[in-house]
Amino acid sequence: MKQTVIRERIRVELKNPILIEGLPGLGMVGRIATKYLIKKLGAKPFALLYSPHFPYYVLVNRKGRVRLLRGVFYYWINPKNDGNDLMFFTGDSQAQTIEGQYEVASKIVDFAKSKGASLIVTLGGFRAEIEDVPKVYAASNNDEWLEKALKASAIKSPSGNPIVGVAGLILGIARFKGVNALCLLGETKGYLPDPRASKSVLESLCKILDLNVDLSGLDAQIRKAEQIIEKMRQIEEKREMYLKKMHKEEKERTSYIS
Amino acid sequence: MKQTVIRERIRVELKNPILIEGLPGLGMVGRIATKYLIKKLGAKPFALLYSPHFPYYVLVNRKGRVRLLRGVFYYWINPKNDGNDLMFFTGDSQAQTIEGQYEVASKIVDFAKSKGASLIVTLGGFRAEIEDVPKVYAASNNDEWLEKALKASAIKSPSGNPIVGVAGLILGIARFKGVNALCLLGETKGYLPDPRASKSVLESLCKILDLNVDLSGLDAQIRKAEQIIEKMRQIEEKREMYLKKMHKEEKERTSYIS
Amino acid sequence: MKQTVIRERIRVELKNPILIEGLPGLGMVGRIATKYLIKKLGAKPFALLYSPHFPYYVLVNRKGRVRLLRGVFYYWINPKNDGNDLMFFTGDSQAQTIEGQYEVASKIVDFAKSKGASLIVTLGGFRAEIEDVPKVYAASNNDEWLEKALKASAIKSPSGNPIVGVAGLILGIARFKGVNALCLLGETKGYLPDPRASKSVLESLCKILDLNVDLSGLDAQIRKAEQIIEKMRQIEEKREMYLKKMHKEEKERTSYIS
Amino acid sequence: MKQTVIRERIRVELKNPILIEGLPGLGMVGRIATKYLIKKLGAKPFALLYSPHFPYYVLVNRKGRVRLLRGVFYYWINPKNDGNDLMFFTGDSQAQTIEGQYEVASKIVDFAKSKGASLIVTLGGFRAEIEDVPKVYAASNNDEWLEKALKASAIKSPSGNPIVGVAGLILGIARFKGVNALCLLGETKGYLPDPRASKSVLESLCKILDLNVDLSGLDAQIRKAEQIIEKMRQIEEKREMYLKKMHKEEKERTSYIS
Repeated sequence: MKQTVIRERIRVELKNPILIEGLPGLGMVGRIATKYLIKKLGAKPFALLYSPHFPYYVLVNRKGRVRLLRGVFYYWINPKNDGNDLMFFTGDSQAQTIEGQYEVASKIVDFAKSKGASLIVTLGGFRAEIEDVPKVYAASNNDEWLEKALKASAIKSPSGNPIVGVAGLILGIARFKGVNALCLLGETKGYLPDPRASKSVLESLCKILDLNVDLSGLDAQIRKAEQIIEKMRQIEEKREMYLKKMHKEEKERTSYIS
Repeated sequence: MKQTVIRERIRVELKNPILIEGLPGLGMVGRIATKYLIKKLGAKPFALLYSPHFPYYVLVNRKGRVRLLRGVFYYWINPKNDGNDLMFFTGDSQAQTIEGQYEVASKIVDFAKSKGASLIVTLGGFRAEIEDVPKVYAASNNDEWLEKALKASAIKSPSGNPIVGVAGLILGIARFKGVNALCLLGETKGYLPDPRASKSVLESLCKILDLNVDLSGLDAQIRKAEQIIEKMRQIEEKREMYLKKMHKEEKERTSYIS
Repeated sequence: MKQTVIRERIRVELKNPILIEGLPGLGMVGRIATKYLIKKLGAKPFALLYSPHFPYYVLVNRKGRVRLLRGVFYYWINPKNDGNDLMFFTGDSQAQTIEGQYEVASKIVDFAKSKGASLIVTLGGFRAEIEDVPKVYAASNNDEWLEKALKASAIKSPSGNPIVGVAGLILGIARFKGVNALCLLGETKGYLPDPRASKSVLESLCKILDLNVDLSGLDAQIRKAEQIIEKMRQIEEKREMYLKKMHKEEKERTSYIS
Repeated sequence: MKQTVIRERIRVELKNPILIEGLPGLGMVGRIATKYLIKKLGAKPFALLYSPHFPYYVLVNRKGRVRLLRGVFYYWINPKNDGNDLMFFTGDSQAQTIEGQYEVASKIVDFAKSKGASLIVTLGGFRAEIEDVPKVYAASNNDEWLEKALKASAIKSPSGNPIVGVAGLILGIARFKGVNALCLLGETKGYLPDPRASKSVLESLCKILDLNVDLSGLDAQIRKAEQIIEKMRQIEEKREMYLKKMHKEEKERTSYIS
């Protein structure tokens, strides 16, 4: 395997499809969102992407079966007559080298184009101190789609902001190849999987694409993530109290010496 | 040399061969096991693998002769009429870059396939705190072979477990190319060559492949490895006692000051 | 995208053109100088350079639009009948790997050659403790152009001096491909954008190429940069005074103990 | 420039030539030795090697002229009728990546082979604590040449010893391509240019190749290197005495407190 390849397992004819991409990244926002949509809509896998730029290990599943790291394309046939069919792309990992990042992003755009995609939407996280509901930032290589995103309560991504990794590169390369692309980034602290940010992103996405998907299924994941954060906060608090106490004792000893 | 090459020195016709791979890795488990089998069965070298992804030095042998780092394929003709012939692959090193890892693993699978291999078995280590006898974990890209391994007292590799390096990648790529592959990993602490883990792996392997090989020859290596570990334990113990003593004296001095 | 590409958006016929290059580097000297000339002369973009060796992120502009990192070629038609037309090259970033640096520099030289360039001038910074006016160092692959630079108050670059990155590699590769090239480096401390060094470089450049450009527009940038440096100096001074005070108090306590 | 290239500037017909290689490396032993021979014999440059795997900077010479990092091949016509002509290869740098090391070494071997070389000798350093005269270690891909080296007072390189970098890889690749190669390594501490080690290496080399070269010209370099080492030793000594004094004073203060 000398370069990134895509293997189409099922030939599907899609109607004016839109590709939604979410690989692992900041707060796993894009991946959680994409996987949720795939599950909720019952989208089916139809193509696999392998790359020598992924990490050099394989994964074992519950049956003891082994597979290479990979990305998977899913498709969903829109029951509405005039609606867009959807493709999804998610996977185990991003490429590990600079050149690999460009190669994988190029392959994804080429594949989407070959399938007649009218739009690629990349999903990801935006590092921020969040307060209540995570905001969603939008950037695009096309003014109309950006406009639609802003109407769907997304905020324009700040000027000069770098969008790192595949979610960004796909936009840049898509412009280069004449494909419309839109990026939605949900605010996240980023150091833990953050389904709350994913939910915000999906709320915007569903409005933009006029999708009717019940997002309440994410609430259980959100509660679980918050419990983990609360537990970590408590541990941190205890540690700090302990350090303060130690410090105080130390000081008393020192002043006693002098 | 721009890419990995295999040089076949002797043309051999093998009968339904199985390839057994063991390169240096965790606890050197795979390499020790593979080299033991090669020696015990009297397998003969027939092909060499060179790669610009191996480390950039050469090795000097006892005669002052120099050679590139490389991998070596060996063959063994099974005296039983209905038995599988065997190929072995071992060598000096794994590839040093991500892309190199994928390239070398691909070349090994391609070569095995071109020789008509019905199965590739990769051997390696599994990091664990071992108690008595090291367990053997199995993973496969084929259910039948996994079943055979489990019957031969191997345990199914835990779900989600990554198998790092060539032992894992070969499995993933073999699946990709339609070749059956099985991975056997022996429990090891991993920081020193661990012939005990290799023996466990070979016990499973011999049962699976119905090979009749005397493994008692590994016992001398095991004893030697244990003596090294015992010596290191003693050094560590002394060091700790010394540190404790120092610490106590320090404390006495400190309390004297205050 | 497997390698560096240049996309010509507008076909221009240039008369005996000279290419002036200034990418980000030490003190941003080359980039500030090149961008100033482009703006002042009203040069127009006509070709874009993309590379998989640039960092793997995209940039968002004020309109929320996204683009790949890139380099941009500009052209300027010299109104004088016998004057050289000019091309400029600047951009977001240098290549991130060794091989990428060579590839990008080669592409720039090839493109300049294909446009009939009689000279390439690369601009950059030269790390030094500057006193009054930053000096300009010159190096070339052609004795005549070096001579012209020295007459224009540049100093010969010290022997053995390495010129790192694209500003240097272009010179080396241009020589290799039979294109004249000249490098002008302005003295800079290098840790902050340094428009003062850029101005020195441009003064030399304008004399060498007999260009009539008003450089006073850089003075506002220079003042701003100096204010930042002054502010940083004050912060540093305060910090040092504070440390001295702490140290003195510490010493008094210690002597009190003894 | 996408890969390593060799540019032949002068076509020379050489009689049964031997290539002697010495690039920068441990103690600069190989480079100092090779450059000395080139100068002493009056060998002339005839081919240049450029590589995108060399560091990405250019060098400025005394005249302010710039050039890419490179390697240079020299030739020397042996005045003896039955003697071997010589080629030399030295340069600015070794390749900076694993794959680059293999590529550059391959190109050198290919070029030597195309010139009809009957032998390649690589020169380098061998890290050791030297006492009197640095010993010379030899390794080869050919028993006859090794034998000749051992007769010329070289010692067989220890078994298992890795020879790192181009001096080693050339031997390995030469064997692969059917060219005889010999490596001579002079003992050196390695942290400073070490002409004494180079002299030892040249003494062996001249005996092996039956060359009559006056090596006394290296003695001035050796004295200079020794003066530098002596000066560094004195600085180190002073620093240690100072530290001891400080430590003593500190202890007195501490005991005074308690």
